[in-house]
Amino acid sequence: MQTYKAPTRDIRFCLETMGYDQVAGLPNFEDYDLDTLMSIIEEAGKFCANEMLACNGTADQEGVHYNPETMEVTTPKGFKELWAKFRENEFAAMPHPQEYGGHGAPFSLAFVMSELSTATNKSFSMCPGLTQGLVDALLHHGSDSQKEVYLKPLISCEYTGTMCLTEPQCGTDLGLLTTKAEPIEGKEDAYSITGTKIWITFGEHDLTENIVHLVLARLPGAPEGIKGISTFIVPKILQNGERNPIFCGGLEHKMGIHASPTCVMNLEGAEGYLVGEPNKGMKVMFTMMNAARLSVGIEGVALSEISYQTALAFAKDRTQMRALDPAKRDPNAKADNILVHPDVRRMLLNIKASTEGMRALSNWIAVNIDVAENHTDEKIRQEANDLVALFTPIVKSYCTERGFWNVSEAMQVCGGSGYTTDWCIEQYLRDVRIAMIYEGTNHIQALDLIGRKLPSKGGRAMMTFNQKITDFIRDNKEDERMAPFVNPVKEASKILTDLTMNTLMAKAAKDPEEGGAIASNYLNVFALTSIGYLLGMQAKVALDREGKFYSTKLKTVRFYMDNILPEIHSLVAIMKSGKANMMAFEVDEF
Amino acid sequence: MQTYKAPTRDIRFCLETMGYDQVAGLPNFEDYDLDTLMSIIEEAGKFCANEMLACNGTADQEGVHYNPETMEVTTPKGFKELWAKFRENEFAAMPHPQEYGGHGAPFSLAFVMSELSTATNKSFSMCPGLTQGLVDALLHHGSDSQKEVYLKPLISCEYTGTMCLTEPQCGTDLGLLTTKAEPIEGKEDAYSITGTKIWITFGEHDLTENIVHLVLARLPGAPEGIKGISTFIVPKILQNGERNPIFCGGLEHKMGIHASPTCVMNLEGAEGYLVGEPNKGMKVMFTMMNAARLSVGIEGVALSEISYQTALAFAKDRTQMRALDPAKRDPNAKADNILVHPDVRRMLLNIKASTEGMRALSNWIAVNIDVAENHTDEKIRQEANDLVALFTPIVKSYCTERGFWNVSEAMQVCGGSGYTTDWCIEQYLRDVRIAMIYEGTNHIQALDLIGRKLPSKGGRAMMTFNQKITDFIRDNKEDERMAPFVNPVKEASKILTDLTMNTLMAKAAKDPEEGGAIASNYLNVFALTSIGYLLGMQAKVALDREGKFYSTKLKTVRFYMDNILPEIHSLVAIMKSGKANMMAFEVDEF
Repeated sequence: MQTYKAPTRDIRFCLETMGYDQVAGLPNFEDYDLDTLMSIIEEAGKFCANEMLACNGTADQEGVHYNPETMEVTTPKGFKELWAKFRENEFAAMPHPQEYGGHGAPFSLAFVMSELSTATNKSFSMCPGLTQGLVDALLHHGSDSQKEVYLKPLISCEYTGTMCLTEPQCGTDLGLLTTKAEPIEGKEDAYSITGTKIWITFGEHDLTENIVHLVLARLPGAPEGIKGISTFIVPKILQNGERNPIFCGGLEHKMGIHASPTCVMNLEGAEGYLVGEPNKGMKVMFTMMNAARLSVGIEGVALSEISYQTALAFAKDRTQMRALDPAKRDPNAKADNILVHPDVRRMLLNIKASTEGMRALSNWIAVNIDVAENHTDEKIRQEANDLVALFTPIVKSYCTERGFWNVSEAMQVCGGSGYTTDWCIEQYLRDVRIAMIYEGTNHIQALDLIGRKLPSKGGRAMMTFNQKITDFIRDNKEDERMAPFVNPVKEASKILTDLTMNTLMAKAAKDPEEGGAIASNYLNVFALTSIGYLLGMQAKVALDREGKFYSTKLKTVRFYMDNILPEIHSLVAIMKSGKANMMAFEVDEF
Repeated sequence: MQTYKAPTRDIRFCLETMGYDQVAGLPNFEDYDLDTLMSIIEEAGKFCANEMLACNGTADQEGVHYNPETMEVTTPKGFKELWAKFRENEFAAMPHPQEYGGHGAPFSLAFVMSELSTATNKSFSMCPGLTQGLVDALLHHGSDSQKEVYLKPLISCEYTGTMCLTEPQCGTDLGLLTTKAEPIEGKEDAYSITGTKIWITFGEHDLTENIVHLVLARLPGAPEGIKGISTFIVPKILQNGERNPIFCGGLEHKMGIHASPTCVMNLEGAEGYLVGEPNKGMKVMFTMMNAARLSVGIEGVALSEISYQTALAFAKDRTQMRALDPAKRDPNAKADNILVHPDVRRMLLNIKASTEGMRALSNWIAVNIDVAENHTDEKIRQEANDLVALFTPIVKSYCTERGFWNVSEAMQVCGGSGYTTDWCIEQYLRDVRIAMIYEGTNHIQALDLIGRKLPSKGGRAMMTFNQKITDFIRDNKEDERMAPFVNPVKEASKILTDLTMNTLMAKAAKDPEEGGAIASNYLNVFALTSIGYLLGMQAKVALDREGKFYSTKLKTVRFYMDNILPEIHSLVAIMKSGKANMMAFEVDEF
């Protein structure tokens, strides 16, 4: 059973409490006050619930087809029609500049919309998601003529984009890549590119005529490692109409996202054009990758949400066993609705509270991207930029890991039915699992957090964040109603600070292996604490308002504080032994 | 890549340290000393690694086929041949009485063998697994003539068995079942059975001519609820050669175990024979179910083990990034083997240590089943029986949940490769997930633990177990080498006792909803603590022995104590708020 209603009420509250007023007040975005934003989101939600979801399950079952003779890929039934509607709606054009056919809307809007589209059709949504990344890369690093040629058709969904990084011998470690780019004699700025790329999402498909690949490769004589990587645009169809020799050599067979073609791409002297400076390709890639990492984080939120709604629909429908409390038993029935059982509620609330928390966290960072890029005050821009950098790996890693747990918990609510294809959760579980791996595995995010983001600029971002928590605690310590929300955050924040100062700074700075050993758990403590703080901020607002949404929000935040935030205690206890036990094993002792 | 070697070294050590000497010393089992047992296990391991594994992946991809015209089910390619070999080996005959063609071996042996067969072909193994349950039920409750007719062909794998419990309106809550059994006039002890059963594993297939179903149904005038349920044998082919009208109406489509047919079975006046007394069917079912629950627990261990071996093979093969410690970098390579990275080790050791711990726990209980059924001393039999009852829900629930996380962690070690079908872990992840649901969902196990097993006989089983931990702590407190193993167990045991006395006994006894709210987390604290104790016992033995296996075991146990056992801290913190937050929500607030 496919069921979904866009969680617009919670999204509105998130935007409101996570600082969207700062964005709406900017000159760039005077057309995008919160009401306007929400009316667009409502419409997008309907489109997703009606159109995107309709072919989500069938597309998963059908999968994608590869023809080895033509090296062409056919997408599942319904995708071409959906693409046409998606294009007509200008769903993908929202956040891009008006001069290239975009709507000039805030990134926050695109980000929220990506939750809705991912929830209802993750495979399909990956194609515009990657295209958006390519648009960003070209806006930041493309030459004027590259922008002229490619941006409009990419923004209008006439073309789609890909990101070609991985090769058989290098995934995490891009420094090992060997694809070669050699200048083409007689053609200025054009290169002949040869190599094999793997795991290329929508590397080949039948949704559009043209596909524009962003390809990492090495120029002749380039330095070894990541300092010798350059970035190239490689279109499937050249401007003169010729077919560029970049062909799909086959598809991967995967646990999920069956409707998203994961291609082996063979470049056989394909013509490409340098983007940005020679050997500075990683800079271009990181522009794509940072936004992509946030979007992958939202995948965890999106699949949690639809799984929650599905499990709740199941629970409301199913009667089984009697209520433990005799007073709650229906005297006219032989069994009670399973929502009477504390454990069913426990599982549902684990999903609900963490999903709302992750939505607050990820939307907070999305809002800060808009602030960082558009605010008129430099200091505010800088602070927002610091927070975006610090939290991008946290959003990517925590939301995808928790998202996977959440979908599994939703399956458990549905019992045997959850394991069958009938309730679709099994697809969501298969689809969400990849998010912990791609765009940098979750541990790579944790290393990014401790190795790059935390120490950057003398730890300025962490100090900014700490100050916010300190302010929150100070501002609310007199308010007794806030005690159940302030005290747990205060305790967690103390633990996080202690970990950061006395474990990370003290031990890991001296011995990088100590850092590597605790990084993943440290990231989770960071995530749990910051979500606690953000939900605490939401509780503060909810306390002064009336209505069911706000009273429920207070209960949900309370559940988070008492039933989820305490997960930090075990993480901290586990980190105590550091690297010792892990490094004690010889290779042949595993 | 399919890779598996039966973990016979660790199995031997488990049997040795978990009390198998008590079993080998019994008159029934004089032919089964540990060396003999291990030689059978070695052979079984080879059979599983060579024959069972060979068609595991292809069978998953092909799945099972249903012909709606003939209502017949065809198993995947290779299954018929595998069944013939399995039968020839008398793999399934081991634990059954010699008078019916069995080998009279200990249950412990069958249990260990089920780890090996499940690891290498879970779908296939479910068929003999259910057959074994039916044999047990008939041995305990069948009439002499029923034993005469059915036991030999079931034990020799000429027939297979099923367990027909679930109906569309009742899964967990069997009291709601409506299948009817009416006496057939003129046929003594024969009943005409009508109803629909769902989720019947191997309810129909082409491996054997005959299939014997154990069916729950109601006699005319039977009381409502579970006190009005009787059990019947319903063979597919009657003794006179006629086809009994019990037909497969269709197959479920599931996330995993694709090669195991999950059937809708329609009984259209099928002839059945009462097993045991009228209206006492649950007693028969529980004989099957308790053994089945242990076997489901071992599924988590089995899939953890093969996933671990696969991830380790990947890790040993893959080079990516440089070691964090410059001294560990291979000067002749551009990247180091990923086993140098602390987080890769952390993930692998999480799997290794918990898998070895769960193997100890489940084998301890298997050994206790043999003791409970065969020991000459009544007091020892009773103590063993108490432990089996207490720990059956713990083994089922904890090992399946942890098993699922372990397989997911193994996938993470392999990065993108883990998500593709190439490394097979994605199949193991899909296959293992059902174990948290069937044979009583994990929360039902937790309710069984706190509601039935703990209070039974004045808490005698828990007292027996507590005494064992107390003895362990007392016996080893002077041994400084044991401190890293004794202290964590002492702390955990104190926490468990406190929880049991002050939370469960005090609060949950007065308010069952308080019990329901904490049961699942309580079970996990119990599991983590008891595994700590058992691994501590193993460490004690290992300390006095020489050789790589023992020194590695000490490191593994140390990892468990420092990096896994501390998970109890968060569980305890989460339990503190009890039912309050869960029950605070109105139905329309979810």
